[in-house]
Amino acid sequence: MIIVMKKDASEEQINHVAEKIKDAGLSLHLSKGKERTIIGAIGDEALMTKVQVNALPGVESSMPILKPYKLVSREFQEENSVFDVGNVTVGGDKIQVIAGPCSVENEKMLVETAKLVKAAGATMLRGGAFKPRTSPYDFQGLGEEALKYLATAREETGLPVVSELMDPRDIDLFIKYVDVIQIGARNMQNFRLLKEVGKTDKAILLKRGISGTIKEWLMSAEYIASQGNRKIILCERGIRTYETATRNTLDVSAVPVLKELTHLPVFIDPSHAGGRWDLVEPLAKSAVAIGADGLMIEVHIDPENALCDGAQSLKPTKFEGIMEELGRVAQAVDRTI
Amino acid sequence: MIIVMKKDASEEQINHVAEKIKDAGLSLHLSKGKERTIIGAIGDEALMTKVQVNALPGVESSMPILKPYKLVSREFQEENSVFDVGNVTVGGDKIQVIAGPCSVENEKMLVETAKLVKAAGATMLRGGAFKPRTSPYDFQGLGEEALKYLATAREETGLPVVSELMDPRDIDLFIKYVDVIQIGARNMQNFRLLKEVGKTDKAILLKRGISGTIKEWLMSAEYIASQGNRKIILCERGIRTYETATRNTLDVSAVPVLKELTHLPVFIDPSHAGGRWDLVEPLAKSAVAIGADGLMIEVHIDPENALCDGAQSLKPTKFEGIMEELGRVAQAVDRTI
Amino acid sequence: MIIVMKKDASEEQINHVAEKIKDAGLSLHLSKGKERTIIGAIGDEALMTKVQVNALPGVESSMPILKPYKLVSREFQEENSVFDVGNVTVGGDKIQVIAGPCSVENEKMLVETAKLVKAAGATMLRGGAFKPRTSPYDFQGLGEEALKYLATAREETGLPVVSELMDPRDIDLFIKYVDVIQIGARNMQNFRLLKEVGKTDKAILLKRGISGTIKEWLMSAEYIASQGNRKIILCERGIRTYETATRNTLDVSAVPVLKELTHLPVFIDPSHAGGRWDLVEPLAKSAVAIGADGLMIEVHIDPENALCDGAQSLKPTKFEGIMEELGRVAQAVDRTI
Amino acid sequence: MIIVMKKDASEEQINHVAEKIKDAGLSLHLSKGKERTIIGAIGDEALMTKVQVNALPGVESSMPILKPYKLVSREFQEENSVFDVGNVTVGGDKIQVIAGPCSVENEKMLVETAKLVKAAGATMLRGGAFKPRTSPYDFQGLGEEALKYLATAREETGLPVVSELMDPRDIDLFIKYVDVIQIGARNMQNFRLLKEVGKTDKAILLKRGISGTIKEWLMSAEYIASQGNRKIILCERGIRTYETATRNTLDVSAVPVLKELTHLPVFIDPSHAGGRWDLVEPLAKSAVAIGADGLMIEVHIDPENALCDGAQSLKPTKFEGIMEELGRVAQAVDRTI
Repeated sequence: MIIVMKKDASEEQINHVAEKIKDAGLSLHLSKGKERTIIGAIGDEALMTKVQVNALPGVESSMPILKPYKLVSREFQEENSVFDVGNVTVGGDKIQVIAGPCSVENEKMLVETAKLVKAAGATMLRGGAFKPRTSPYDFQGLGEEALKYLATAREETGLPVVSELMDPRDIDLFIKYVDVIQIGARNMQNFRLLKEVGKTDKAILLKRGISGTIKEWLMSAEYIASQGNRKIILCERGIRTYETATRNTLDVSAVPVLKELTHLPVFIDPSHAGGRWDLVEPLAKSAVAIGADGLMIEVHIDPENALCDGAQSLKPTKFEGIMEELGRVAQAVDRTI
Repeated sequence: MIIVMKKDASEEQINHVAEKIKDAGLSLHLSKGKERTIIGAIGDEALMTKVQVNALPGVESSMPILKPYKLVSREFQEENSVFDVGNVTVGGDKIQVIAGPCSVENEKMLVETAKLVKAAGATMLRGGAFKPRTSPYDFQGLGEEALKYLATAREETGLPVVSELMDPRDIDLFIKYVDVIQIGARNMQNFRLLKEVGKTDKAILLKRGISGTIKEWLMSAEYIASQGNRKIILCERGIRTYETATRNTLDVSAVPVLKELTHLPVFIDPSHAGGRWDLVEPLAKSAVAIGADGLMIEVHIDPENALCDGAQSLKPTKFEGIMEELGRVAQAVDRTI
Repeated sequence: MIIVMKKDASEEQINHVAEKIKDAGLSLHLSKGKERTIIGAIGDEALMTKVQVNALPGVESSMPILKPYKLVSREFQEENSVFDVGNVTVGGDKIQVIAGPCSVENEKMLVETAKLVKAAGATMLRGGAFKPRTSPYDFQGLGEEALKYLATAREETGLPVVSELMDPRDIDLFIKYVDVIQIGARNMQNFRLLKEVGKTDKAILLKRGISGTIKEWLMSAEYIASQGNRKIILCERGIRTYETATRNTLDVSAVPVLKELTHLPVFIDPSHAGGRWDLVEPLAKSAVAIGADGLMIEVHIDPENALCDGAQSLKPTKFEGIMEELGRVAQAVDRTI
Repeated sequence: MIIVMKKDASEEQINHVAEKIKDAGLSLHLSKGKERTIIGAIGDEALMTKVQVNALPGVESSMPILKPYKLVSREFQEENSVFDVGNVTVGGDKIQVIAGPCSVENEKMLVETAKLVKAAGATMLRGGAFKPRTSPYDFQGLGEEALKYLATAREETGLPVVSELMDPRDIDLFIKYVDVIQIGARNMQNFRLLKEVGKTDKAILLKRGISGTIKEWLMSAEYIASQGNRKIILCERGIRTYETATRNTLDVSAVPVLKELTHLPVFIDPSHAGGRWDLVEPLAKSAVAIGADGLMIEVHIDPENALCDGAQSLKPTKFEGIMEELGRVAQAVDRTI
């Protein structure tokens, strides 16, 4: 950590900072320039969290040098994380596609959708059981019933199933029924929930919060990893910016940036990012071209009667056409889909 | 709701939208201009959530006319919400000040702080028991022990106590020990948690998420209110913008905007907004001048050895001086503090 | 335009609004619901700019129905704009690549770079003559001298040249020397400059401001078109968001959104968006996959000694490798490059 | 400047960076930790702009230590800048209020407004002559004619006049007619315009760009100062964020942050920030309480017939009432208005 002292910092203040650093168990490096004194705290920066550096008199600013996350970092593990979810390998050359409805509405529609998306090339099935809705008066999901239907759909198609967990009290249900536990954007920093799923052996799909920085997102992944679970998928789904032409702004740059910082697989959800079904194809192509390891796409057999997110849901035939197009882009970047 | 059809929408598409509106139980108003056909759906807009309007063929855009929240709206209740928390009246002319440490570190420091902030004019005591920390390796709070110390401090000073709830499984503890349950910024859209506290009879301090819109924030308050609990305090604490000179950007405009839209009291937290102790005084003055009903301020007897947020914590003597200054500003806007 | 009256708007206020609309030359459509009165102003919405609708008593909000831009809209011209710049066709199936240094440093480096980027497949040459630098103490460009070198480089390679105009007083120089006049991000709403270039017959490359909405950007293009010049290229170069991991956040969604709203060609500048040379390749691939009509890429023969933007400049050999990769992606979306 | 080398940076790369620093004329400070090598470049950091540090092989990141602005910094001049504009002292204890219409519409309305705002306590008169409008089809201002009316209004009332300059070609007109040249938000980084006004001896009111950081804003002020003109007023007018409830988000924190960094006076424009006349009073109170040195407020004798910004313009009587309220707040923070 680099600590910059104020121009007029006194000798006493500088010594006080130095003491604090040594007390925390780090070693010291002092550089007195004409304009500023710079203090380097060398060693395990995690120890510095015990010191309220910016509260010390005479300190102008401080900058960490090392990354605050460890287990999920590329420095900790150089090779990409590759792991299996059922019969599906995540993190390898093949781009995995999770498809399905926003929310599970009944068994029939789910099984039918599952069969159609599988035929089109999807390798996992999504479906909401507990839905985080902005309004308390909107449909909140079928709950456990929906999880059972997901299990049935898996039985009938072989597709591993993905569903979002919102409440730590539901964890046993999720362990029982699903293959991938999704942590939604609104819960990216629900740290108790992160710890809970970190204790399971399920794969975790961790969506980026709509205003989560890449660093905060990796810290949330670290929460999960710190409890023992390393099967983590990061999923970019658009961030909140000033632009209102799209529901959110898909941050494709996050993919190469993450590929440098972490060994975890990175997925993209073009449905939530754009918020419109007609943007799914171009956004998905761009995701594949930039190196995403997977996609998460909303498909509904009857979007205009969907119980949520109809405007961004694709019909199965449209999804099929898109999968073909994506195959061509995947090939152009030496991947399969 | 106003629905704008695409320029080239067919008669059939227009009729289809009309049918959907009628099926949902609303009445219809059609206006065919040269450029666009506009359809008005008149009646209870909540019923329109059953229709995936933007998924209907031929629809260009749709705009709700009515507000999606009810119980918390100024239209529903014209007079300000005024309620008691212990012996403290929230929402009246007197500006209430919640002060105390970021996290409860031990009984002695807490009771001492409580006495000092009370002497300076604070009317409620804050103290974190469960801390939402970005890093899993940082201090996570003392848990139930901290809640007990808060109860002790209340006993010794008479100050009602405020603490943040992160997990629905802890709700009984909070009901037992605290007077005001805080929902932190990261949990503004943790809908399960909102429903849970909505079932209690405790006052709820609902912080704005760092990227929460005012509308979303009020919808979150509506979640609480929809479960029966109307004792809700909204607390602005800075939003995430591109500017990095401050920890967050305090959105003071939110106060008058909320005063128009809702009857709920609005507090401001200048400590988290600025992220620096030396910004607390100017931000707090600005909050009082613009009409905030309360303040939430971090005070620590020894900021440089605090276990969290030392840089933004005030020493008790400094806090005392600020309270005097705030008294003058409050008077200038016909309030007391 | 749709005007929503306040719940308690009086008959008199409603009539007053109605009068204003009729005075402006539009016709009227009134719908009185139980909750709100809605007034539709039907006709040429441009006439409504004479009325300060939101200043009228009793008005709650107003929403335009029609787009505020005309000449640049897809409604005005259904087919894509395709035009020639020298021997290069912009807006067609072939993706055009503008490459070259951030700033022109001397004749030799420029001509050498021009030859190398041409050999690698670039079809236009960029080079800054007047540089918008954040600091007054940084290198400000060689001015007219640089424009002359650009003309020389064009002579030697046949590549049309692109350079940024910052000041209306320099317009004659630009007309004399360059083929495409660039309006930089900081000048997207420099309306006097836009009008000036709108009077020339040069192609204009209009960069998106770092906080420009898509609507504002199209209005700026409308400024140019309103003066008679329709040869406009829109260039997305990243927007300012809260994320600091990249210089800006490349908004790839802007491409399909613009393709729906306007007939103008859309380019992407991956160099400024990411701010790092190693992000150019992935971002450029994503741009090609999503349907960009062109790219603008910084190439420097000696990045570490560049006078600006060294960190985001590619060496010519690296650029050559990227062009090959982009060719494969272009093919996968039925384009050439 | 602190330079952090990559974990695997080679000895050769470290030496290469060291050479570059010495070549630039700075001295060197090397610290080799177990995890990273840190290089300090000590001396005049402005010299480092010649080195493309982040383009050097092996460099992970670099952080400037010193501020990039000089003349406008508090370090350069410790006392507040106080200067006269006509008979008005800017930067002293008295808060100065600039009031007047968005645009000058005719002589009669301007002189009448000038008299009314003067009577209410305003000390300067604003009025747009050249208007930066988003649409080319909107009213663009009366130009020179408006400047003449401003001069007349000054003659009749004694109020110094403020108007916005958009084009360097108009500078002589502004020197002839106005007392304070305003640089609008859209031109905060129109560097050629900044240099031009920096050569005059008029006071300059420099508005913050809607996405300008505080650092960039100060760099723009430095552009002006670097040409010799030190009479600079900074004016915060709201920044662009994700929140759409207000036109922009007023960043009140900018005031205390600027007070620490610079000696220049800081004004606030509550009219543009909120975009609604009913927000002007609360925002202005908050501005005065937090320490603004002045306000800029839109006042129009007939807002609903204004040629621009009617919705945010106050009627003179309302303005008068607000001035009284502001007087009380000013007194509470030991200022006058």
